[in-house]
Amino acid sequence: MPTLDDVLVAIADPTRRAILDRLTHGPARVTDIAEPFNMSLAGVSKHLRMLERAGLVRRARRGREHTLTLDARPLRRVVRWTSRYERFWNERLDRLEAFFDQKGQSK
Amino acid sequence: MPTLDDVLVAIADPTRRAILDRLTHGPARVTDIAEPFNMSLAGVSKHLRMLERAGLVRRARRGREHTLTLDARPLRRVVRWTSRYERFWNERLDRLEAFFDQKGQSK
Repeated sequence: MPTLDDVLVAIADPTRRAILDRLTHGPARVTDIAEPFNMSLAGVSKHLRMLERAGLVRRARRGREHTLTLDARPLRRVVRWTSRYERFWNERLDRLEAFFDQKGQSK
Repeated sequence: MPTLDDVLVAIADPTRRAILDRLTHGPARVTDIAEPFNMSLAGVSKHLRMLERAGLVRRARRGREHTLTLDARPLRRVVRWTSRYERFWNERLDRLEAFFDQKGQSK
C-alpha cells in the first residue's frame, strides 16, 4: 500500500508529472513514453518505478511489451490532505497579514 | 517564487506535514515547534527552511525570537494540479479495470 509520502515524492518531479499527463490520453508503451522526453529507457524506467510504487501507474506485460496505464486514485489522498488547509488559505489570510504588519511596526 | 516542485517536496515529508499541522493552531517559536518532535533545533531548522522556500511558512524575527506562521496559499497550486485528474479517478476506473481484465485473460 503506497504511503502519502510515496505519492507526494512521485508527483514532486516535473518529468513524472509529464508522464502522468501523457497517460491521461490513454495507455502507452514504455518506448512511447520515453520518446517525447528525449530520455534513455533506463531513465524513464526509473521514473516509472517511482510512479508504480506510488500506485499511480499500472503495468501490464505481454511478452516484451509493457503497457502503462494511469491510476489516478492515489491522488485523492493528496486532495484529502490539502483540504484540511482550505480554511487557512481563505480565513486566515487577514490574520496572517495583520500579524506580519504588527511585527513590522514593532521593529 | 516557489515552484510546484518546491511545494510538493516540502509536503512529501511527514515531519514537515506535522509542523504545518502544528502551525494551524497559530504562530509558534522555533523552540515550540522542536519540542513535540524530540528533535534538535538544527534538524527542525532544516525542515523549516524547506517549508519557507516553498512559501508555506513565514518567519518574523524580533531580536533572537523567531516566530513562524503558516501560509497555506501555495497548497492551492497542488489542489489545482490534482484537480486535472479528478475525472480520471471517477470516469476512467471502469475502463482501467476493463483494460487489465482483458490483459489478464489474453495471457
